[in-house]
Parts: sequence; structure tokens; C-alpha cells
Amino acid sequence: MKVASESELIAALSAVFALSDSSINNVLVGIGDDGAVIKASPRNTVLATDMAVEGVHFKREWSSLHEIGAKITAANLADVYAMGGDPKYLLVSAGLTSDFGIDEIKALANGIKSEADLVGAVIVGGDISRAEKLVISISVFGEVSKPITRSGAKAGDSVIISGLPGKSAAGLFQLQNGVTDSILVAAHKKPVLNYEAAKKFRSVNSMCDVSDGLLSELNHIASTSKVGIELDSKLISAIPGFKELGEATELEIWDLVLAGGEDHVFVATTSSDVPEGAFVIGKVVTGSGVSVSGVSKLPATGFRHF
Amino acid sequence: MKVASESELIAALSAVFALSDSSINNVLVGIGDDGAVIKASPRNTVLATDMAVEGVHFKREWSSLHEIGAKITAANLADVYAMGGDPKYLLVSAGLTSDFGIDEIKALANGIKSEADLVGAVIVGGDISRAEKLVISISVFGEVSKPITRSGAKAGDSVIISGLPGKSAAGLFQLQNGVTDSILVAAHKKPVLNYEAAKKFRSVNSMCDVSDGLLSELNHIASTSKVGIELDSKLISAIPGFKELGEATELEIWDLVLAGGEDHVFVATTSSDVPEGAFVIGKVVTGSGVSVSGVSKLPATGFRHF
Repeated sequence: MKVASESELIAALSAVFALSDSSINNVLVGIGDDGAVIKASPRNTVLATDMAVEGVHFKREWSSLHEIGAKITAANLADVYAMGGDPKYLLVSAGLTSDFGIDEIKALANGIKSEADLVGAVIVGGDISRAEKLVISISVFGEVSKPITRSGAKAGDSVIISGLPGKSAAGLFQLQNGVTDSILVAAHKKPVLNYEAAKKFRSVNSMCDVSDGLLSELNHIASTSKVGIELDSKLISAIPGFKELGEATELEIWDLVLAGGEDHVFVATTSSDVPEGAFVIGKVVTGSGVSVSGVSKLPATGFRHF
Repeated sequence: MKVASESELIAALSAVFALSDSSINNVLVGIGDDGAVIKASPRNTVLATDMAVEGVHFKREWSSLHEIGAKITAANLADVYAMGGDPKYLLVSAGLTSDFGIDEIKALANGIKSEADLVGAVIVGGDISRAEKLVISISVFGEVSKPITRSGAKAGDSVIISGLPGKSAAGLFQLQNGVTDSILVAAHKKPVLNYEAAKKFRSVNSMCDVSDGLLSELNHIASTSKVGIELDSKLISAIPGFKELGEATELEIWDLVLAGGEDHVFVATTSSDVPEGAFVIGKVVTGSGVSVSGVSKLPATGFRHF
């Protein structure tokens, strides 16, 4: 795709789809966050969608259909939790290749259901088509009392995270280098999300899940919140698993942790008490951009699917 | 895809995604209708999704990106109207090919918006990815007071339709045979839906839009409603445009009208007054299956995308 950046893409789409007055349509949060929020009662509605394409997001040689279905579902559920919401209903569209029979369809569907079951969400509809490459698009309908956006970070907030990012990226590297069975490979094929942690982040000021790399996501929070973010490498390196992740591959640990995507850990900024189980990794300051003390060379970009 | 029929596919997916007690989840209508319906107040929520894949649903040589965007949007909006609802919010996922720049993205987005604007629906989010073939998945969130399902037809009902199906199929045939500019070709590239007609069908007993061919859709209504349907070829041939459609191509007119998909005309069964502008084409009877008086050879199947 000949588009310079995701921000350029979102800006173009936001212009086309701009609402003259979003209040007329009851749109509380529109394009550009993890999910959209529609005003409703007693709780607001949160809507999100994710697409996974064979060869871009997954390889059938590496992942089972069950894993593929579960992983795309997890990405969707994470979007709703990242908005402070609870996922309820899923729609599943799939373009299936010519080798698909009922067994393959059931394997994919069971993967989707297994992840949805973890949070009590249910699949209520979908659409099936033929395609040359397997493609799955899931949309999720959830409920949210108080939406948590990317634009709510305030100077003085602590930056908190639910776990260490980079495992999926390390697992991908291992797969590309012939390792087929390890904890990191498993984390790439189907990350284990900490949905319970996300539920404890309901009093934070801003939040997102790490789909595209920690630096990329925090840069987005910083720019939309008009603040700066200072991460502390000592705090990050104290998160359990950091040492093991650094030793698992030849990759630079900070490239993995700061730019690795798809783990869907939850990162937030808060002026309230730090929730149980969360790790403080830095603070929000006046200014702009994201810096990481103690890391001389930051990775250039996050994980990109386009 | 190695699946015998759409009904086999839906049965398999319904088994995997079965709800132990749908009332726990407030699911009023689940998998197998044009959309799912979730209990909500003051109006219920209707959810639907449609996917369009390059080479399966459209060809870039034949259709502009604007037309492609508008057509898949129309299919989504039709699903909500077919449930008796009003579409409100759309999520758009797209897998874009390497030739896509900002201009191509805007053309596709403007096509989607142009169709959504016709009914006052707005695009609130989405997901963009790379793909080898263009693929678009749209999900729609709408509101419905009284859901109209496929299972509500009653013996004695009149079968009514909002217009003549078959134009899109005739246009596709013309395109395949070198005709690039005609009313029918235009109807294939981007059907003009009669959303106003659908809104007048709110007191009907059962309803759907014709995506896969009239016979196929009515067979679905007949089987889920446990009734038979008798169509009258004389009534159908009195719908304006019937003669012209028959003369436009070498195709058998009844193959076009009874098996042509993607026009998204609305077909319903009603025991109330026939809405203004609707055409009566037959009646619901005790029994099973669909017959068409005066047509000796019925087309075997409807329009299939898998």
C-alpha cells in the first residue's frame, strides 16, 4: 500500500467520514481510537472491528485454524477492553479457501468460540464467502459505562502496563528461524491476554492495548492527549520475564519490548492508585513525544500490518 | 469450498456457536437470518455483516472503487431493513492491495459514505490491512422495534415484493459478453435499493432481501416458517420492467428473475394491507417448498458466493 503512515491513513478516512455534528448521531468516540462509542442507556455501546489476512497476519503452515480464529478474536476483545468496556456480541465474516470443508470451518469457529468464551461473549452472526487467501473479519459489540480513550492522559499520570510486550514478536522471529515449539512461539500463534487486568484499569485516564508496538501506541496517546511520556528502562526491565525474553533470541531486547506488536498487553496512564498486578513503567509530563531513559537507540517504528 | 450447501454450513456454525440459553444473553434472533437481534431499550439492536472479495463479488476491471464501496454497503443496509430495522452505524474493515494510495482509499471510502448517506447511517470505525486481493467487510449496527424474521410466514399470507429481481444478474451476463454500458450493467455494478419500500414493509409477518435469488430466499422463508409458498408467474410478469428484462439478454427470463441475486429487492409475506408500491406475487399455503405456477422448469439454485 502506498500510504506513508497510519496517521496519514486515519486522517484521510476521518476527513471522508467526518460527522458534521457527532452529537446528532450520539457518537461519543469516533474513528481513531481502539473502538467507537455510541451513547446509549443504561450503558454506552462500544463497537470495534479487526481483520486478519493469510500471509499478512498469520501463516497456515505455522498456526492451526483454531489458533488463527482465537487470535483474531482476542484482538477484537482487546479493543473493547482497551475502551474500558465489556465485549458482548461478535459478528464473524470469513473468506474461505477452496480446501475448506465442514471440519476446517468447525476448527476455525471453535477457535473463535474458545476465546469468546473466556469473557462470556457470544457469536450472533456472520457472512461466509470464497476467497483465494483465508481472510477473517470480526466485529464486536460491547458495553461501556465510562469510555477510556487515548486522549485522556494528563501530566503527572503514572504510565502502567499489564505485562511485558515483545513475546509475540520474539516468537515470530523464532518461527522464521526454524523454532516451532516454544513458549514464545505459542505466544505468537495465540497470545494469552490478561482480560482480568484490563478490567482493573477502569479508573485510568487513558488506555489502549498494544497491537502495533508499545512506542507506537504511546506516541499515539501522547499526541492525542497533547502530553509527553517518559518511560524508565529500569522499571520496564524489572517486569517478570524481561531477562528470559532478552536471552531467547538474538534480537535486541528493546526492539522486542518497545516495537513488538500483537501481545495485546494493556497500557494506560493513571492518576489513581496503581491497580493490583500492574507495573509502573514511566510518567506523563508536559511536552510531546515518548522518551525512554537508559535506552540509547529507540526502534524506528512499531509493528505494521499495512 | 467443499461444503454441499449454505444450509449445511449454517447448521454446522449454529452448532458450534449454539447458546445454551439465548435469553441469558438477550439474543432475540441469532445465526441464520439477515441479521441478529439483541434485546435493548427503547429499541432492540440489530447487527449484520457482509464481506466482498475481489474476483468473487466484484472485478476491479468492471467496477470503480466508488461502486465497489457503495455496493457492499448497500448489501449491509439491506440486511438491517430486511429485519425491519433502521441502520445507524457502520464499521469498515478492508484488506487493500499494493496499488492503493490515499486517492484509492478515498474513492472506496466515498463510495461507502455515499450509500450510507442515503439512509443517514454513519461510519464510526474500521481496520485497514494489506491483502493480495481487495477484500472489504462491513458490519452494521441498527435499531429495530419489532424484528421481522424469515420464520414468521403464515398460511394465507400474501407474498409481496418491492421490485423485479434479476437486473444485476442480467447486467453481469452483459459484462461477461462485452457490454460495458447499460442500465443493467449499472444495476450490477451498484444496484439501486428501494430503502423506502422496505420501511413500508414494517407490518409484514416475514421478510428478507434478495441477495441469493428469489427462489433460494423464499425456500428459506418456507422452511423456517414451516409453510409452502405458491408464486404466480402472471403476477410476476406484470411487474414493470419484466418484458424489457426478458428482451435484454439471451438468458431465460425466469432464470434471471427467480435465481438472480444481489438486487436486494425486499420480499415479504403479509396478512395486513399490501403496502403502497409493493407487488403481490403469490401466497403462503400449508405445506412446504416453493412452486411457481406457469413456469415449467425452475432454476436449480440461487446465486452463490461460495
